[in-house]
Amino acid sequence: MASDYSSTPVTLNNVNPKVLKCEYAVRGEIVNLAQKLQQDLKENPGSHPFDEILYCNIGNPQSLAQQPITFFREVLALCDHPLILDKSETQGLFSADSIERAFQILDQIPGRATGAYSHSQGIKGLRDTIASGIEARDGFPADPNDIFLTDGASPAVHMMMQLLIGSENDGILCPIPQYPLYSASIALHGGSLVPYYLDEETGWGLEVSELENQLKDAKSKGINVRALVVINPGNPTGQVLAEANQREIVEFCKKEGLVLLADEVYQENVYVPEKQFHSFKKVARSIGLGEKDLSLVSFQSVSKGFYGECGKRGGYMEVTGFSPEIREQIYKVASVNLCSNISGQILASLVMSPPKVGDESYESFAAEKEGILSSLTRRAKTLEDAFNSLEGVTCNKAEGAMYLFPRINLPDKAIKAAEEAKTAPDAFYAKRLLNATGIVVVPGSGFGQRPGTWHFRCTILPQEDKIPAIVSRLTEFHKQFMDEFRG
Amino acid sequence: MASDYSSTPVTLNNVNPKVLKCEYAVRGEIVNLAQKLQQDLKENPGSHPFDEILYCNIGNPQSLAQQPITFFREVLALCDHPLILDKSETQGLFSADSIERAFQILDQIPGRATGAYSHSQGIKGLRDTIASGIEARDGFPADPNDIFLTDGASPAVHMMMQLLIGSENDGILCPIPQYPLYSASIALHGGSLVPYYLDEETGWGLEVSELENQLKDAKSKGINVRALVVINPGNPTGQVLAEANQREIVEFCKKEGLVLLADEVYQENVYVPEKQFHSFKKVARSIGLGEKDLSLVSFQSVSKGFYGECGKRGGYMEVTGFSPEIREQIYKVASVNLCSNISGQILASLVMSPPKVGDESYESFAAEKEGILSSLTRRAKTLEDAFNSLEGVTCNKAEGAMYLFPRINLPDKAIKAAEEAKTAPDAFYAKRLLNATGIVVVPGSGFGQRPGTWHFRCTILPQEDKIPAIVSRLTEFHKQFMDEFRG
Repeated sequence: MASDYSSTPVTLNNVNPKVLKCEYAVRGEIVNLAQKLQQDLKENPGSHPFDEILYCNIGNPQSLAQQPITFFREVLALCDHPLILDKSETQGLFSADSIERAFQILDQIPGRATGAYSHSQGIKGLRDTIASGIEARDGFPADPNDIFLTDGASPAVHMMMQLLIGSENDGILCPIPQYPLYSASIALHGGSLVPYYLDEETGWGLEVSELENQLKDAKSKGINVRALVVINPGNPTGQVLAEANQREIVEFCKKEGLVLLADEVYQENVYVPEKQFHSFKKVARSIGLGEKDLSLVSFQSVSKGFYGECGKRGGYMEVTGFSPEIREQIYKVASVNLCSNISGQILASLVMSPPKVGDESYESFAAEKEGILSSLTRRAKTLEDAFNSLEGVTCNKAEGAMYLFPRINLPDKAIKAAEEAKTAPDAFYAKRLLNATGIVVVPGSGFGQRPGTWHFRCTILPQEDKIPAIVSRLTEFHKQFMDEFRG
Repeated sequence: MASDYSSTPVTLNNVNPKVLKCEYAVRGEIVNLAQKLQQDLKENPGSHPFDEILYCNIGNPQSLAQQPITFFREVLALCDHPLILDKSETQGLFSADSIERAFQILDQIPGRATGAYSHSQGIKGLRDTIASGIEARDGFPADPNDIFLTDGASPAVHMMMQLLIGSENDGILCPIPQYPLYSASIALHGGSLVPYYLDEETGWGLEVSELENQLKDAKSKGINVRALVVINPGNPTGQVLAEANQREIVEFCKKEGLVLLADEVYQENVYVPEKQFHSFKKVARSIGLGEKDLSLVSFQSVSKGFYGECGKRGGYMEVTGFSPEIREQIYKVASVNLCSNISGQILASLVMSPPKVGDESYESFAAEKEGILSSLTRRAKTLEDAFNSLEGVTCNKAEGAMYLFPRINLPDKAIKAAEEAKTAPDAFYAKRLLNATGIVVVPGSGFGQRPGTWHFRCTILPQEDKIPAIVSRLTEFHKQFMDEFRG
């Protein structure tokens, strides 16, 4: 028997080089270190200067004790075990409208079979519900045949990258900073990421002149740019685009023949009264651009919003402005994986059609929703203020999404120390922060940033009673860090 | 506004050519026709010579009225809505052991958060349960760190193809006939499918000499063969490999430095007393091959077996014999999609640890299981006999899985008619069958077959009371077809 892996056939020299190239910082090195520290704390309480790990690295609300929306879970449970629907005890355990909704959903599923593969785009009746929800949101028609239900938004993004990227000559315009799903997916599909920088000075504004410059530059390098990715509300930047800006973006895509890939998974997460979410489809339709004028894909997920049902892996993409032949290709790729999980499909329909005024669950539902969103608003503001009070740190306004992306002006001595430790300066800071406080953030280098600037992404998701401790630990750590490395 | 799609940016000329190349017959043209006919029947009853569509194209048991296993659904419902676990009404609605199991599972989930993203390989406690189930099945140790939970087996297969295929020079040895997920995934990742033919004369036997010949042939063409796919029990062929044959296969992979990709999703579907399922890992370990001697990936799914929970999208791969560096790459790719759906993860753990003797649910669980498996055995035999009684048709023995793959010796006149209709002869037959009877099968050309032979795949899944009608409609159709085209 071999004593090591030297005789096994797969090595770093012959594994797919696209896999080697792919990076995904949200679950990278820092998180592995955090898990190790957590294990340490469990085995040897008191072994570190903190008593718990505070995960601010990932938009995963329920892992930080956010409670699921009761109505959604009632309906899911009833659809999982429909045998109890007719039992009298069920009426004591479940709200009347959840029972009614479960019956409605089961009637939409051929044979009421929640354990069957569905149509590869998802159950038609659920797509009808989602299309109605989109219509109600936008005031423009939506077609259930345009909806592809997916296991969260990530597989939908991969599916579109797969369609658009044939070789490294195919480029995708991506914001910098960006959510690293995009860079990872482009790398895995062997395409070229064409960066455009968001402007930190104007609250991470998206300038069309920057898009034009980067497009021109990419073309001069022989890159055939296929699509523009826009994340709105922004991840990791938290900005919410103004409608006028969105109109420019839509016009730019039409003029340049680019597919607009609109990541709209944070559409329910807007925290400032002066901003509102507008879907790109609504913006396009409202300036008269129809189905055949713009190729637009909107991604939505059950993982975000006020529901935060990450573990359910539900989501959809709304695909408009593609010819029937190309739609057939998208359908074919979807069909290879058969269908997305039915509970996730059901939840995606619930998210787009929650209880209404007059329904038995409405008041408790509205209270749960308002409780979560208003708390997120307070947490965002508290953390934003805390970051802005630190020496050498400036932090954008948390308009939306679930993140802050503060910039740190690191002293030269810290940058030198990072170089010596063979790590990026922001990763050096993040590791120090973790080892000192148990707070887990993701270095800006995982998202991309203007060369020479350093950031980290911090979620606003820890429960409110933890926020004061985070602020004080962070403040204390930062002061000590600066004292150690200051000029 | 544009009046057609001529100004949209994505066309058949610039879409990823790998997507164009990919085919997936199980949900292809014949199924689209079937859906159209079903719509016709709904709108105009009596518009066709049959009153329902009988889907025998896909291994989707619950779409054909197979009922879910009660215990599994009880646990899933309780985990979806844990608030009811402590309520007194719950004890009237759910079995005691399902309540107990739900509590156990919730305790295994960090923060009891079924709505959180989990570890990218899946919840550790559930992987422990699955590893124990594998140990009990095989009599050899299994490591929870080797388990990657996935949304059904398909994404796991894609993940391995992504790892192994860097270019068209990378080849994967695949059985012919094969389940078209493999050809589709190889096409999407831009690799080369290296076919090896199963021997129909010996009940779709897998000959190592054939593997050797095809490997040699591929090498001579400059193909770097990376892996061998084996589907056991077979899809679409239904054969169950003998243990001695599996030993040869394992030795072949070790000798030739190939990764063994073992599709073992039908491990619970064996219908003949003389055959038994043996996992490739058990076979390898039992001849003394350890972790470092063989790179082996075993795929399992909650969609098959007696449970048939296709819509839940649960499954796992057990990854053994890869170096830590490569394991890290697999983990990274898994982490880009965050995690598989938690209900599917829970169900995968239940499938590998069902109720035991003495548990409250045991007897009803065992009766449900036995009812489904014995009925499948009878259905397989009835259909096998029916096919073998048709003129010019020979059908393999249904040893396992969910399919029969009869061979039709089509008359020359039928082959000519198919040519004129610009379709494969077996697709011509399948379309005729559908239009005449409402029975949906998949042409053999969707799976691959020896040139000049014609087959179709028919599932054994229609409920038993439908089988006599299927047999008589099929027999009558076949007679008429042969009368029309015979010599």
